Amino acid sequence: MDFSAQQIAAFVQGEIVGDANATVNTFAKIEEGKPGSITFLSNPRYEHYIYDTEASIVLVNRDFVPEKPVKATLIKVDNAYETLAKLMTLYEQSKTQNKGIASTAVVAENAQVGKDVYIGAYAVVDEGAVIGDNTQIYPHTYVGKNARIGESSLIYSGVNIYHDCQIGNHVTLHSGVVIGGDGFGFAPTPEGYNKIPQIGNVIIEDNVEIGANTCVDRATMGSTIIRKGVKLDNLIQIAHNVEIGANTVIAAQAGVAGSAKMGEWCVIAGQVGISGHLTVGNHVTLGPQTGIISSIPDGKTMMGTLPIEDKGWFKVQAVMKRLPDMYRELNALRKELDELKKGKTQ
Amino acid sequence: MDFSAQQIAAFVQGEIVGDANATVNTFAKIEEGKPGSITFLSNPRYEHYIYDTEASIVLVNRDFVPEKPVKATLIKVDNAYETLAKLMTLYEQSKTQNKGIASTAVVAENAQVGKDVYIGAYAVVDEGAVIGDNTQIYPHTYVGKNARIGESSLIYSGVNIYHDCQIGNHVTLHSGVVIGGDGFGFAPTPEGYNKIPQIGNVIIEDNVEIGANTCVDRATMGSTIIRKGVKLDNLIQIAHNVEIGANTVIAAQAGVAGSAKMGEWCVIAGQVGISGHLTVGNHVTLGPQTGIISSIPDGKTMMGTLPIEDKGWFKVQAVMKRLPDMYRELNALRKELDELKKGKTQ
Amino acid sequence: MDFSAQQIAAFVQGEIVGDANATVNTFAKIEEGKPGSITFLSNPRYEHYIYDTEASIVLVNRDFVPEKPVKATLIKVDNAYETLAKLMTLYEQSKTQNKGIASTAVVAENAQVGKDVYIGAYAVVDEGAVIGDNTQIYPHTYVGKNARIGESSLIYSGVNIYHDCQIGNHVTLHSGVVIGGDGFGFAPTPEGYNKIPQIGNVIIEDNVEIGANTCVDRATMGSTIIRKGVKLDNLIQIAHNVEIGANTVIAAQAGVAGSAKMGEWCVIAGQVGISGHLTVGNHVTLGPQTGIISSIPDGKTMMGTLPIEDKGWFKVQAVMKRLPDMYRELNALRKELDELKKGKTQ
Repeated sequence: MDFSAQQIAAFVQGEIVGDANATVNTFAKIEEGKPGSITFLSNPRYEHYIYDTEASIVLVNRDFVPEKPVKATLIKVDNAYETLAKLMTLYEQSKTQNKGIASTAVVAENAQVGKDVYIGAYAVVDEGAVIGDNTQIYPHTYVGKNARIGESSLIYSGVNIYHDCQIGNHVTLHSGVVIGGDGFGFAPTPEGYNKIPQIGNVIIEDNVEIGANTCVDRATMGSTIIRKGVKLDNLIQIAHNVEIGANTVIAAQAGVAGSAKMGEWCVIAGQVGISGHLTVGNHVTLGPQTGIISSIPDGKTMMGTLPIEDKGWFKVQAVMKRLPDMYRELNALRKELDELKKGKTQ
Repeated sequence: MDFSAQQIAAFVQGEIVGDANATVNTFAKIEEGKPGSITFLSNPRYEHYIYDTEASIVLVNRDFVPEKPVKATLIKVDNAYETLAKLMTLYEQSKTQNKGIASTAVVAENAQVGKDVYIGAYAVVDEGAVIGDNTQIYPHTYVGKNARIGESSLIYSGVNIYHDCQIGNHVTLHSGVVIGGDGFGFAPTPEGYNKIPQIGNVIIEDNVEIGANTCVDRATMGSTIIRKGVKLDNLIQIAHNVEIGANTVIAAQAGVAGSAKMGEWCVIAGQVGISGHLTVGNHVTLGPQTGIISSIPDGKTMMGTLPIEDKGWFKVQAVMKRLPDMYRELNALRKELDELKKGKTQ
Repeated sequence: MDFSAQQIAAFVQGEIVGDANATVNTFAKIEEGKPGSITFLSNPRYEHYIYDTEASIVLVNRDFVPEKPVKATLIKVDNAYETLAKLMTLYEQSKTQNKGIASTAVVAENAQVGKDVYIGAYAVVDEGAVIGDNTQIYPHTYVGKNARIGESSLIYSGVNIYHDCQIGNHVTLHSGVVIGGDGFGFAPTPEGYNKIPQIGNVIIEDNVEIGANTCVDRATMGSTIIRKGVKLDNLIQIAHNVEIGANTVIAAQAGVAGSAKMGEWCVIAGQVGISGHLTVGNHVTLGPQTGIISSIPDGKTMMGTLPIEDKGWFKVQAVMKRLPDMYRELNALRKELDELKKGKTQ
């Protein structure tokens, strides 16, 4: 379906520079723009692309003044990036939604399924489970006994939700997500480890998105809690009895160990590890691969991991172990030298 | 189903302090205790919770003497935590077990299925596979050709077991586990990498538990072996031809590279990486994110992103922050010393 | 099926030393060789095993001269390891291939399925999807709307391929792989994060192999691209708009953040993290757990890892590389100062 520059400008309250009849039917990055696509320019670093792009329409910020002629039609708006995101959201919403319950889906007799729900081929909704209105469940997903999913949630294919877990409204779970697997709790005995039963559950509040193959374990007792608005990337580990505060964002392959409590609005980079039983405050930022082994107050920024080139690393590593001795020796040298200088001037 | 303090005390050989008629029907953490729940106090650090808890019954150690009045009924036992774990295990076992083979399960004609087995909706058991008595296989799990699963094992939904792999008795595999995917073996040629076929298998011995989305690759030749009593957390990578010794415990997101051999009773923290073709002894402890690039003898403890033995790491870490100051000071010392020597020779 | 030393030697153009009638029907590592198995000796470090092995046939390099009597029949070839790999490939190819579309597979009416395709039980091929000739799709795999898979590809059980993704010829995807989940893109607002729709796709070129539970996210716009011949191990994260150059190999649990571009023929070890929006050249090697936060030119080798607090990190990092020099300088200073003091007291 095609839209003209005129239609788009009217919709986003933009100002057209160029051909108002230019039409588009898809989106593109500015450096990959093709005829019929709309793109945007926001970061001045990419400005040079606008003079060559084949895109038909480019959204730009109101203050943008081209230095050279531009072939594309420009639409000037308050915030080019946000406006594009809005158009993309509209485009996504315009797609025909999946509807209906596949004949091959297995829904237990005593499960409750709301209105306008989609349940895909071979999905299984077990006894006592509840699925809210407008929720979509893709093929091969398993919803365990007495699990609850709210309204307008989107559960992709191959998700596994264990018994008694609760998932809110407008939640997105990507393929391979596991919600409510047993927490990792074992008590040592001389013969081996005895399992500590994990009889709690997982609570996921509204507007959470969880990336592919991420795992959120059920609590030993009580609940592992993912607060509203949290965004988790792929392949993340959230252990039992963890709580992630509202609107915290965690990048791929990070892990949070058992009973750790994380505040609101944190930004956690990829491959970070957070040890168990500690508290991370609100608005904390952690750089990639950082390892956290003690609690962190509100507002802190921490980062870690060192890449040193080539074989130099082994030399550095060899000396690193001597750092405490070096520090002591350095202080001794300072003292002796000062005494020597003092003696000399006397 | 409700139990009275009197019934519980009789069962766990405990001594009641308070109302013997108090009844409970669930478990709770002491800080989240609600009427009708039983909890425990073991760590003196949490003692303050016992004076406010709403739980109806609290298990305590025999030597516990409250400093203030306690509303809950106490049951004194030899080990409050272990006793609670026992009661939780009982509670889990009392749940009605899944039974029977779902009409939608696909079981190959020449597969062998034992007595009292549960095979859930849409599970697939391929040709020549063997499933032992009392084993439970949840929906969407795939058991490959000639794979064998022992007795009383619990395979959750969405597990993938490749052909010819062998799984013991009393083994638990959580959702998304992949057993027997090809080891990562390729031979470089000028045109690209040639695959080395991975014709071995995986052997998992008795009483092993493996967490969600963990992968254990099949051996190139021979077997990748997980010995009895091993506990693996979520999202772990076990590469081809690895052997993990009995009763070793590995936390989430750790990885063990090809042909590494790990001893018994090791405790490996989260996000640890162990390089290939090396040997880790028995009773080795590795701290979070440690990277191991050479073999480790029995009984060692190592930690750090930088692998430094034992507590030495904390000293190194403490000094590391002063490195820029040390560097400045070292240069100052050099300059002053040179001036002093110059002065002396004049 | 048994093969004699004579048959094998003829096939691999090898020279027999010993009993030409020795027969084998399986493969083994030299230290685990049993009667009826063929093995190889390539690395002189393992030579001692050849004098004890129970294997019936051992492939050795042409220049191998035993120091003691060997019980097994030897076959001398140009490259013992490569020859064994060839025999193993032949053995794998000789297995009867899966064929046909299971009655329980759901294939959309308007999906296109090529010749000699295998689609296993409960696999789902959604609307508009295309499956090329000779491709095998195992049980429980989901191929989303308008996704395309080329010829002779091998998609194991429980793989999830999102809509519009494109997969080439001779591609192998292991169980639990997720192709085309949404990239991790959100725009902050005072109330929470707004999702940036991810309307691009994933393109996987020919001869790629991807390990169990690895995730490749779809692009925001355009494509996330895995070039021909790339090999990805298990549990890897490839974020949106990443491009991995031809014949690059990445080991387990590594992660590549959004819009990073990686060159050809790189070798990336396990648990490596590569930050977003940077460029890694061709023929780059990265050691285990290395964290990369800036672009890397062609041919570099880097390794390392370390965590430190706050912004001091960058200063520490700058000095860290000078540690070996500092250590040397410190020792020189000590010596000179001692000599100076000695001179002074004389």
